[in-house]
Parts: sequence; structure tokens; C-alpha cells
Amino acid sequence: MSKKQKTFRPKARLPRGLHDEKAFEVVAQRQMLEQIRQVYELYGFEPLETSALEYADVLGKFLPDQDRPNEGVFSFQDDDDQWLSLRYDLTAPLARYVAQNYDGLAKPFRRYQVGPVWRNEKPGPGRYRQFIQFDADTVAAPGMSADAELCAMLSDAMEALGIPRGSYEVRVNNRKILDGVFEQIGIALDDPDTNNQRLTALRAIDKLDRLGVNGVRALLGKGRKDESGDFTKGAELSEDQIEKVMSFVSVTAEARLDVCNALDDIVAGNETGKSGVTELREIDALLTAGGYGSDQIRFDPSIVRGLEYYTGPVYEVELTFETTDEGGEVSRFGSVGSGGRYDGLVERFKGVRIPATGCSIGVSRLFAALQALGKVDDQALRGPVVVLVMDQARVSEYQKMVQELRQAGIRSELYLGGSGMKAQMKYADKRQAPIVVIEGEDELANDTVTLKDLALGAKLSGEISDNKEWRESQATQVSVPRSDLVSRAQSMLDDDEVGE
Amino acid sequence: MSKKQKTFRPKARLPRGLHDEKAFEVVAQRQMLEQIRQVYELYGFEPLETSALEYADVLGKFLPDQDRPNEGVFSFQDDDDQWLSLRYDLTAPLARYVAQNYDGLAKPFRRYQVGPVWRNEKPGPGRYRQFIQFDADTVAAPGMSADAELCAMLSDAMEALGIPRGSYEVRVNNRKILDGVFEQIGIALDDPDTNNQRLTALRAIDKLDRLGVNGVRALLGKGRKDESGDFTKGAELSEDQIEKVMSFVSVTAEARLDVCNALDDIVAGNETGKSGVTELREIDALLTAGGYGSDQIRFDPSIVRGLEYYTGPVYEVELTFETTDEGGEVSRFGSVGSGGRYDGLVERFKGVRIPATGCSIGVSRLFAALQALGKVDDQALRGPVVVLVMDQARVSEYQKMVQELRQAGIRSELYLGGSGMKAQMKYADKRQAPIVVIEGEDELANDTVTLKDLALGAKLSGEISDNKEWRESQATQVSVPRSDLVSRAQSMLDDDEVGE
Repeated sequence: MSKKQKTFRPKARLPRGLHDEKAFEVVAQRQMLEQIRQVYELYGFEPLETSALEYADVLGKFLPDQDRPNEGVFSFQDDDDQWLSLRYDLTAPLARYVAQNYDGLAKPFRRYQVGPVWRNEKPGPGRYRQFIQFDADTVAAPGMSADAELCAMLSDAMEALGIPRGSYEVRVNNRKILDGVFEQIGIALDDPDTNNQRLTALRAIDKLDRLGVNGVRALLGKGRKDESGDFTKGAELSEDQIEKVMSFVSVTAEARLDVCNALDDIVAGNETGKSGVTELREIDALLTAGGYGSDQIRFDPSIVRGLEYYTGPVYEVELTFETTDEGGEVSRFGSVGSGGRYDGLVERFKGVRIPATGCSIGVSRLFAALQALGKVDDQALRGPVVVLVMDQARVSEYQKMVQELRQAGIRSELYLGGSGMKAQMKYADKRQAPIVVIEGEDELANDTVTLKDLALGAKLSGEISDNKEWRESQATQVSVPRSDLVSRAQSMLDDDEVGE
Repeated sequence: MSKKQKTFRPKARLPRGLHDEKAFEVVAQRQMLEQIRQVYELYGFEPLETSALEYADVLGKFLPDQDRPNEGVFSFQDDDDQWLSLRYDLTAPLARYVAQNYDGLAKPFRRYQVGPVWRNEKPGPGRYRQFIQFDADTVAAPGMSADAELCAMLSDAMEALGIPRGSYEVRVNNRKILDGVFEQIGIALDDPDTNNQRLTALRAIDKLDRLGVNGVRALLGKGRKDESGDFTKGAELSEDQIEKVMSFVSVTAEARLDVCNALDDIVAGNETGKSGVTELREIDALLTAGGYGSDQIRFDPSIVRGLEYYTGPVYEVELTFETTDEGGEVSRFGSVGSGGRYDGLVERFKGVRIPATGCSIGVSRLFAALQALGKVDDQALRGPVVVLVMDQARVSEYQKMVQELRQAGIRSELYLGGSGMKAQMKYADKRQAPIVVIEGEDELANDTVTLKDLALGAKLSGEISDNKEWRESQATQVSVPRSDLVSRAQSMLDDDEVGE
């Protein structure tokens, strides 16, 4: 080994847009995912785990933005010179899986998948290059029951997580109605001459939440200059066309059937639009039968979803409670999940259209929302009981104590460092140890052990002003016969729990 | 879009060496990981999740084979032209994490991580390009307590999974003893002239399990021609040198202290070797205090581990029960996990040696072992109750039934396809539905529902010879008032469970 190699010291750092999840986040997020999983399994969905890597051509067409099919994807050649890509979402792997295993699947096929996806994009605040999605899709189910079920399931999932009714809304619309409106204004879905206009209009409407009515109007027309001065070219629709589109997206009513009635008026005489409203009415009937009110699942024509591949109902889960950002600005938390019906799933591979509908939850955003709502258990992983090392010659005896505690199911550990009492207490504090166990000279002479209740101590420290005082307070420590170690530790832990 | 693009149909396939995990595998493996996780958390280990991607230079030196530092890794440039790699194991990311966060960590730092790793290698039978590892490491713990603890934890994990004592063994050795032997025969660790000889000898010994004594002897000497006729050059040790090495690796005894005594003789007069045996004695004392016998954790000098970076105790979890492979050959199941002590962890980044020890479980292999042992629950995910669609006009009513069942915590679903009775029954069979719920014309007229107990039916079909007979058997179906749907389904499910 050359001198140069020996002294090369890479900097210990993580690429931008990636992050490490520490213990609390891992445990609390796992609990959250578990709650969602239980709801999805209750609905009959079954898990699937595809690998992170797929052939690049398999992912090709299911990227969110078809205009730039391979941008945003991490791709590389393997040692067979084949192009592989890291999955960009969980929908494209599902498409591949269904096409590959179609004949053997029990259909309709309800599957959920949770796992990381990767984006080769410039990271920014809240924009990661690896993040977790939680998807549920129903494949080969043509009817609205499948869509209604997904909306109900999303609602159930939010409530299972403790998000109160009124703090979330599942918002539903149907792309066929927008398609009908587009037909009415002369930019129909199958017209290649107006395809770009239509897509630009679609994406403009999808920005209603962020840009407001005037911003969307501008993007439907000539275009819009944003705050940075950049100009985005618009769809160049006429005033009349814009008016029609805006009348559609502005329909609003509390009751789902009132929304349907208003939409009927707008698409009067257009078959495509009318079939979309009919589908919404079917969804309403199913949801009403299931007991879901419009305080849980609403119809909202402003939900269009920017992705081109949706062909029927589209939906979003919006968290409606307000948060204050770093700049003091108050806003609604916003969307944590979305989905819709798409028929092109297997077609790409087999040339056959297979009806499917599905939704995706953004796990990090949802987790941030639960933290904002105070719905994340701070004590998701309680610290271990720490047995201190007072005398290296007695380590085997301490080891025996730890062993007894663990056998009683008490999370516990022997201090493994080489440091003295002060460092050990500091370590125990840092680990949020509820108890430390001490067998010093006095204890050894009397065949006892001392248990210091750090959890109680931390609580008392709020009440007792003098730090030294509570540390020495008799209330927080007790000496018991060595043989009572486990039972006393257990009762201290039980008390801590009650007191929380 | 051009005609050509429109008709391009990629084949729905997965790259070699990757695979999809279906429902049963996902659920059963999740249960297995959960059991291991509980043991690790009981020991005070806390979870960490690093991202799949790291800077290529960060991974560089912690690859299993230092001779070819970047082979076997999937690497690519991001849009900033930085080289990123998919992690090759979970140790290198831990090294980066510890170096990056060293001052803030509670030390000693016990962390576990479970997740996929990737290898850009030619896949083969049982060799995947993505697979899951379950690692546990203790960083900044200099003493043997940390190593003893990991061995005990591995033993506890195997028993928590239901692997009976006698069917597994944790085998422990210490690299310092081998280093001592190498010093005795003139190929010391710090001698650059004999470095290649030493590494070749190390890898030769690591193959003892596969090649047997004669194979290893050949590789320690001139070299060895394998069955395919390929010649592998050996370490070119002399007969005397080989004899010494073989006397070391051949030490065998049941009691851990007997192994230590025999090893003392072999390394007599060599300080390095003696310190290794002393460490084994410390581990023995700790394990004995914890109640771990040599039927759980043995000392075995033939365990050396091929990786160069180990500096002290090394260990393996071996499954000792026999399996029969496809060719009818009977063999021991073999290793499902391994680890050891390494001090170079943070040194690469900071120039400071930090003592650490850790182990890694190969999740797929362990899962295969549990299946071979019959320790995987076939019913890990029970199929859903399926409510059939007898009349499309009554779908909302069926939806209501499903809703009631789910509210009682019963996994259930509405049939979402468009097919008739026969296809629906076939679907229910395929989903392993325990019960189907039918509301046909008769039931509707009487305000009843029929529950068909498919789980019981499947059981009876083993006893009743005529397939048609059991399908029509009254024992497997019952009509109850509509209002009793949930309670009756629940009691049928409870009976199924009892009968299992």
C-alpha cells in the first residue's frame, strides 16, 4: 500500500438530499407504518415487495413527467452492460409485476407496497433524493367500488393514526368531467393538434392550491411571471375557454350530491363529462352506504392531479389543520397522499388495457404532520436500564444482573465503556435510561443493589429547583436485596408508565 | 409521439439476481425480523436507518475484498457529477455515520440496522444482487463484554425464532491467536514482505468448511486445482509452517476452557497469541455467568473469517441441522450470520482507532432455514372474508356488510371484479378466504345471509372423497339472520383458529 493511499481521508458526509434516520424517527415511523398496514390488510390488501432495481426500459413510461422520460432516474449499466434504474415510484414496478405474473394472480389484485424510491433531482428543502412511499392499488377492478374503497381506506387510515375528523379530508374528483370540459372547449383528449395546450392546461389547474385563481387563469392564457421574474408560457386558451374551465374547477358545495348536481349543469350535453359525474354518483352511494360523510370524503372539482395517465376518479388526502412555518407564515399542512384510476398499467407491456386504481402516501410528510399534531409517541422506544460497572473484576456479576433483567423482558444493558461513575451517569442520561443499577462497595457488603430512578428524577427536577438536591433525593433511589433486583426494577418501570 | 414509440413493448421482466417477494414471504419474513428486532432492542440496541446511497469514496475501503475496492458496487454519477454508490453492506454506512456524528453519540453506541444491500456481481443460485442484512454493532466498546454480549444475543435470537438448541451453534475464535501463529511461522501482520502470503493463508483457512483439511493444506502450500480444472495459487508456506497452522485450526473440544488450554500450548511464548487466548477466557467467563453453555456458544479455532479487517474475536452462527439439496446430497445448513471485532472503523475518516465489534445476519438464508425447520407460520396472513356480488344493483348493501365486518376487526373485502358466481368462488379459493358471504335471492327474501366456511371445507375435503359432496355439505355453510352476520363470521373464524 503506497503512502498516498494510506493518508487519503474521505470526508464522512452524506450526499445532499439524503438523510439518516435515528432511533426515535425509525421507531415512531415504524409504528405509523404499522397502523396504516393494519388498515390496508383489514381491507384485504396484501403486501408485495419488488426490488429497488428494474430494467430502465421497464420504468420508462410510468414516470410522472412523460416529457422527459429518463430524467430524474438513477441509472447505470451492470456488468452485463444492461441498463438498470433505481425505481422512481412504486407504480412502475407494480405494472411490471402484474404484466409478468398476470395469469397467476387472483384478480382483482389488491396489493400494498411500502418502501423507498429514488429521484435523481436537485434536492431542496423538503425534497429528498430518497424517500418512502406507501402505495395501495387495486388491479383489474373496473367498477367504482374499487375507487370508493380506496377513498374509504385512506379516511380510515387517517383516523387510525389519530388525525381527528375535521383535520383531514379525502378530496375526490373525476378526470372524465375535465375531459368533457376540454371537449366542450375544443381541446379534446384524442386531438393531437391541441395535445400540448391540453397538458399545459391540466398542469395549470393542478396548481390552483399554490397559485390561486389568478395564477391559474394566467397559466391557462398567455402565461405567468413568477416572483423570481421567470416567465412560464401558458396554454393560450381564449377568455371563453378559460371561463369554462374556471367555472368547472370553482364548483364547491359541502354535500357530495350538490357537487354532482352543479357538475351536471356544467357538462350538460357532453357524454364524457356526464359519465364522469355518473361515476361520482356511484362513489357517493357506496360511501354513504359505508357511513362516510362529507366531513371525511368530499367531492372537489379543483382536484385534477397533474399526471397525464389518470383516466377516471382522482383523489387527494389533504390535511386541513394549520401550521406555522419558520418565517411565521400560517398555512394549511396540505396533501399527504393522492391517487386515481389509470388504465394504461399493463398495456405498455401487453397491449391490453387493464383497469386499475391506486393511491400513494408520502410517508415523511405524513410523519411530519403527525408530529405537528402531537400524535407521535415520544416514548416510542424507552431507554434501557443501565447496570453500571463499579469494579471491572465484577463484570461477570453485573452481566448476570443484566441477564436476569432481560429474561424478565426488561430492556437493559451493561455499561460497555471504560469510564468512571460520572461518565456512566452521563451516558445513562443520554440514553434516557429509566433506571441505573449500582452495586458499589456498600451494596456488595450487604448483598444489595441500588436502583436510581432517572425517569422519576427527571420529573422531579422540574419541581425541585436545586439540581443537586433532587439528584440526592431519597425519593429517586432505593437499595433493595440483590434478589429483588428484577421485581423492584419492574415495579419502578410500571410506576413510570402510570405517571406519564 | 411517433408510431415507433407507440408500439415499443418492453418485456415485463426482472434483471437476473433480483426477485419479487410475494405476500406470504413478506409477512412471514416481517415476523421473523420482528422477533430478532425485539431481542436486539431488549439488549439496548437502537435502530439506525441510513440511506441506500453513499458517496463512492465513503464506501471505498470497507468492501469485503480490499484487493478490488470498487468491483462489485453499483455506482453512478448524479446530476452534480458526483459519484454515488449503492451500499454494499451496512458496515461502511455505519462507519460514515459514526465518523460524522461522533461527538454527539452516546458511547458505547449500540445500533442495529436491517435493510437491503446491493452487489454488482454475476448472480448465481442463491446469490442475489439485492438482499437483506440484519446487522448489530457496538462502537467504542473496548472490552470483551461487547463481544460476549453479541454472541449471547445471536444465541438468544436463534432461540427466539424457535431454532432448538442443538440445531444451531455460535462459534467463536480470536484473530489474535491466528496472528500469533502467523508471527511464529514468520509471516507477521506488520511485515509487508509476507503480506500477500498471509492474506492468501487467511482465505485458505476460511475455506476449511468447504474444502476440508486437504484442500486447505494445498492452498497453504503450492496451490490447488479445483474440480473444473482451474488452478488457484497457494500461499507457498513450507511443510513446517503448514503443520503449525493446521495444528491451530484443528484444535477441537466441547468445553470452552479446554479449547483455551489447548490453544495456550500452541501459542506458548508468543504474546500476541496469548493475549488472544486471554480474551477468549474473558468471553467464556462472561458467557458462563450469563448461563450460556457450550451447546449454545462454542470456541472453534477453525473460524477465522476471510475479511482482513478483523482484529480480535470473530464469530459465526452455524445451523447444524441437515438438509437435503436438489441433488439428494445431505449437508449441514451452514452459516446464517457472522461478525467480529474491527478497530479500523472510524480511522479511515478521522485517523483515530475506535474499537468496535459487530455481526450480520443474512436474512434470506435464515428465512430459508426457518422454512426448512417448519418454523414459519403458514397462516401468517389469513385470507380475507369475501362478500360476493350477486346483484350489481345491491353493491352498496354488500359494501355495508364489508364495512360492518371490518369495523369488528375482521379482514374482509367486497368482490371487485365483474364476474359471475363461479369465478368469484375461484377467486375466494385463490385468496384463501376463510369464509364467503352470500346474499342471493332467497336470503334477500328472508333477510338472511349465507356464510360458507371455506377453511372448514378445505379441511373436510381431506376426509370426504367426493369433491362435490363436501362443497354441498351442510356442515360448511349456514344461513343466519342478516343482523347476525358479524357475530357468526367471528365465531366461525375463532373455530377455524382453534381447529388449526
